[in-house]
Amino acid sequence: MKVQPDCYHCCLRQVLESVRFATDDPKVHQQVMLEALEVMKSFDYNKTSPIMGRAVHKLVEKHTGVKDPYQKVKEESIAVALELYPSFKKFVAEQEDKLSAAIQVSALGNLLDAAAYGDLRQVDWEKVFQNELAKNHKLGDIEKLRGELKAAKSVLIIGDNAGETVFDRILAAEIKAANEAVEVFYGVRGYPIINDATMQDAIHSGLGEETTIVDTGSSAPGLVLKDAPAEFLKLYNKADVVISKGQGNYEILEEDPKRPIYFLLKAKCSTIAAHLGVDLDTLVFLQK
Amino acid sequence: MKVQPDCYHCCLRQVLESVRFATDDPKVHQQVMLEALEVMKSFDYNKTSPIMGRAVHKLVEKHTGVKDPYQKVKEESIAVALELYPSFKKFVAEQEDKLSAAIQVSALGNLLDAAAYGDLRQVDWEKVFQNELAKNHKLGDIEKLRGELKAAKSVLIIGDNAGETVFDRILAAEIKAANEAVEVFYGVRGYPIINDATMQDAIHSGLGEETTIVDTGSSAPGLVLKDAPAEFLKLYNKADVVISKGQGNYEILEEDPKRPIYFLLKAKCSTIAAHLGVDLDTLVFLQK
Repeated sequence: MKVQPDCYHCCLRQVLESVRFATDDPKVHQQVMLEALEVMKSFDYNKTSPIMGRAVHKLVEKHTGVKDPYQKVKEESIAVALELYPSFKKFVAEQEDKLSAAIQVSALGNLLDAAAYGDLRQVDWEKVFQNELAKNHKLGDIEKLRGELKAAKSVLIIGDNAGETVFDRILAAEIKAANEAVEVFYGVRGYPIINDATMQDAIHSGLGEETTIVDTGSSAPGLVLKDAPAEFLKLYNKADVVISKGQGNYEILEEDPKRPIYFLLKAKCSTIAAHLGVDLDTLVFLQK
Repeated sequence: MKVQPDCYHCCLRQVLESVRFATDDPKVHQQVMLEALEVMKSFDYNKTSPIMGRAVHKLVEKHTGVKDPYQKVKEESIAVALELYPSFKKFVAEQEDKLSAAIQVSALGNLLDAAAYGDLRQVDWEKVFQNELAKNHKLGDIEKLRGELKAAKSVLIIGDNAGETVFDRILAAEIKAANEAVEVFYGVRGYPIINDATMQDAIHSGLGEETTIVDTGSSAPGLVLKDAPAEFLKLYNKADVVISKGQGNYEILEEDPKRPIYFLLKAKCSTIAAHLGVDLDTLVFLQK
């Protein structure tokens, strides 16, 4: 999905949030905003929004020296998710269709996204998730996935934000429950960008227990294949099933997927909802 | 109040809303966004945000030829407000302190602001207003106003959005009830800008019944004194009481009020709330 008109103000709002995490100096906030305007104005809008986001977020490190402004936010998200983990693990275990339940829990982990909520500790997450799970989500291509998993040797999950990483463990475990022979890989960003999960965040989330964590090399809030190490590309091309999580990965990969991909996301912005032809906040699971 | 970092993304979001009202052509939306980035980047951020808003919103007319993209929105707001008018007129009449009640109703009219709500007809305004009025608003300088009104010959209200104009009639009527000899003037924008009230909007709101409507000459979403006709400036300087409504007028006039002004607004953005030292959504009435 190419840069859309709404991406500009959204990206600008997000970079301001980021620079505020990095420094309290209002002069730096102002300077980053002015340079972000320049970067966006000159950006080739035939590229995707996560690539624009990367270009703009680079300004924060340039002006503050802070490489990972969301480090504390990510740690907090992971801590909150780890507290919630046992009850959602139990919830999935109690469902008749465990794979569907695990997919929903994995996608709803995206609600922890720092861009959508302020103080994570103030939110009654149990209630938020229970309300969401009570909705009758239409997981478009789940039967197709179920079939493919039976014969699969390797599954690659392309991760999104830190925090939801913890819930992705539940999905990885259910994939392995569906086929004991399968190996599950989990792709993380190669460099901190917003609150997206890096190797360290994935390890802190406990993903090493259920998956083999792999570096995608991407420094954008979405998977950029041309930045990926050869080892990851081999895995990506060879995997029997690839599940891409979240909006950022969708925005880049749906443009030219190179191979079939299951996209699992909650449509949190009206532009992406319109692109997918669904209502805002719909949980989407479809293969492209 | 000078341009703050949050003004950039907010202004950009608003101009996109505006150009979407003016045309369905996505190429024009994109072009306006790119030019808005350029305008904001080059804008002197020691000026105020409404002046930046004016510069950016000019792009919509430039690219679409539409002078008043919010015309329908304003008509709808006024129609909704006129439907609500009798019940709020009655509400104020039933209160012991009618002036306080009228000030609250006048400020809460600002909730009709199109920037904050989508489809106005979908909102239960009676309920929204009743909830708001149930809050114990602290109208800081109301006793001072009460005293000044007793001896006043002329009062000038500087209007804000179309729609709340209808509720301002209730305030104008209570001002005249407090002192029969007073003449109430109502200042409107000299040119359409976002959903701010122009002469035509004020007339459609019925303000001609309670006030003398005057043109401020301003084409920004806030009163710009240097653009005002000599006649308005005379009135502004001579008025015994000036009441400025809404955020836009506050942002410009608090910088250098030239004369004492009562500011009446609901702090709808965190930047203005912080500047005033109040919580978001607080109803503020203070003299500067």
